[in-house]
Amino acid sequence: MAFLEQIQDGPLRRREFDLDRGGRTVSGVLWEPAEPAGGAPLVLLGHGASGDRHQTPLPWLAKRLAGEHGCFALAIDGPVHGRRFVAPGGRESFWPEWQREGTVEDMNADWRFALDFVQSLPEVGTGPVGYWGLSMGTIYGAPFVAAEPRVTVAVLGLMGIVGPAHYVPTIEAAANAITCPVLFLMQLEDELFNREQYLALFDALATTDKRLHANPGLHPQVPVEELHHSIDFLLRHLRGEATDFSPTFTVSN
Amino acid sequence: MAFLEQIQDGPLRRREFDLDRGGRTVSGVLWEPAEPAGGAPLVLLGHGASGDRHQTPLPWLAKRLAGEHGCFALAIDGPVHGRRFVAPGGRESFWPEWQREGTVEDMNADWRFALDFVQSLPEVGTGPVGYWGLSMGTIYGAPFVAAEPRVTVAVLGLMGIVGPAHYVPTIEAAANAITCPVLFLMQLEDELFNREQYLALFDALATTDKRLHANPGLHPQVPVEELHHSIDFLLRHLRGEATDFSPTFTVSN
Repeated sequence: MAFLEQIQDGPLRRREFDLDRGGRTVSGVLWEPAEPAGGAPLVLLGHGASGDRHQTPLPWLAKRLAGEHGCFALAIDGPVHGRRFVAPGGRESFWPEWQREGTVEDMNADWRFALDFVQSLPEVGTGPVGYWGLSMGTIYGAPFVAAEPRVTVAVLGLMGIVGPAHYVPTIEAAANAITCPVLFLMQLEDELFNREQYLALFDALATTDKRLHANPGLHPQVPVEELHHSIDFLLRHLRGEATDFSPTFTVSN
Repeated sequence: MAFLEQIQDGPLRRREFDLDRGGRTVSGVLWEPAEPAGGAPLVLLGHGASGDRHQTPLPWLAKRLAGEHGCFALAIDGPVHGRRFVAPGGRESFWPEWQREGTVEDMNADWRFALDFVQSLPEVGTGPVGYWGLSMGTIYGAPFVAAEPRVTVAVLGLMGIVGPAHYVPTIEAAANAITCPVLFLMQLEDELFNREQYLALFDALATTDKRLHANPGLHPQVPVEELHHSIDFLLRHLRGEATDFSPTFTVSN
């Protein structure tokens, strides 16, 4: 395995890579701070359908995580996306892939493989790990977070309990197995998923430390304020800071 | 009208007052920054049932707004609360008051009177005005925000469409008349109001610029992170900063 390219982007280093997992390519990108400190927090970023590892807002998040907060960020292409492109591409290629039994297991293994790889780099090391992924980043991300004990905090959303026949019990079981703190994002005018589907997924999350943020707009119109909240939320947990979940009645004035 | 006392509290000045509105006492407190700048933002703080103008987290919010952000903060006692105490006090006194027709109109007039008063002080002036109030602070706050054009942003919540017979159409009509940006807070394990009541109130808000934040815990267990978010949200709007409600797809990386 080799890095395909290393790009210095201001204070950040962006390293593109292809991994070979038993004949299956896992294409990804690792963002590193100017002065990487092994054991610093690592945030995994899952992109949405028809995007790739560089889909907005992933690089935006990565630059802030690495450039301002000394963290690492890792994104990999979803199945049939990015450098794993399968014609005709976009959602047209994603729908049949989503209907394929085994797609979740494959992507789980891809994430695990990529995580093993970057944690084996001495400059990255084995610090705390968070996950951020909306829409398709939750379709695959919720099962991955459920299955991967290294992930201890997650931002999920833009998704409900819905999908192909094989997938509905998978996402429900995944939610039932997620016990880490979760910030769950919802779009109030989502044209893809309705409120009942959203709330069913939120309710199914086993963790008691979960919060729902619902914002106006269509599916992709997540406000930038939620991206800032996402980063705050992830960092607070990854750094082991007080999670602020004390009742207000104990706030000292 | 006279200030009852003026207390220097670190860099803040806290001024307690009683106003006489046609024989009805309006008791309140004004927090001012160390170097008050006339025309700075003013945030009105509405307390919850059985509390008073100093109920947690009002002073916590006021100290941050005035001490860190150069704003003014104003709280007045609710009907039958604080210095307007009516025996036996607490929720026992609030329930009959809530059932009294005219209670909303009276409290609206109290708020307007107090707002007129503090804006007449040259060191306060007529800057932008926000409202923050949960639970009883929304029971009275939603109708006030709906009726008062000086209020241009609000944090509401811990409340649904529910209450005495005269009140249910009042709160619904108020929500239908609120057109300013709103952050609406919900508690997932609220022992007083259920999800349907909460969502009915949120849905009834006429503004399209609204977001719902639902957090774990009982009615009073609003997490401190939401208090921080509240302040960020109010200030962003009161200062006329970009509201961050651009779609993520337009975020520049």
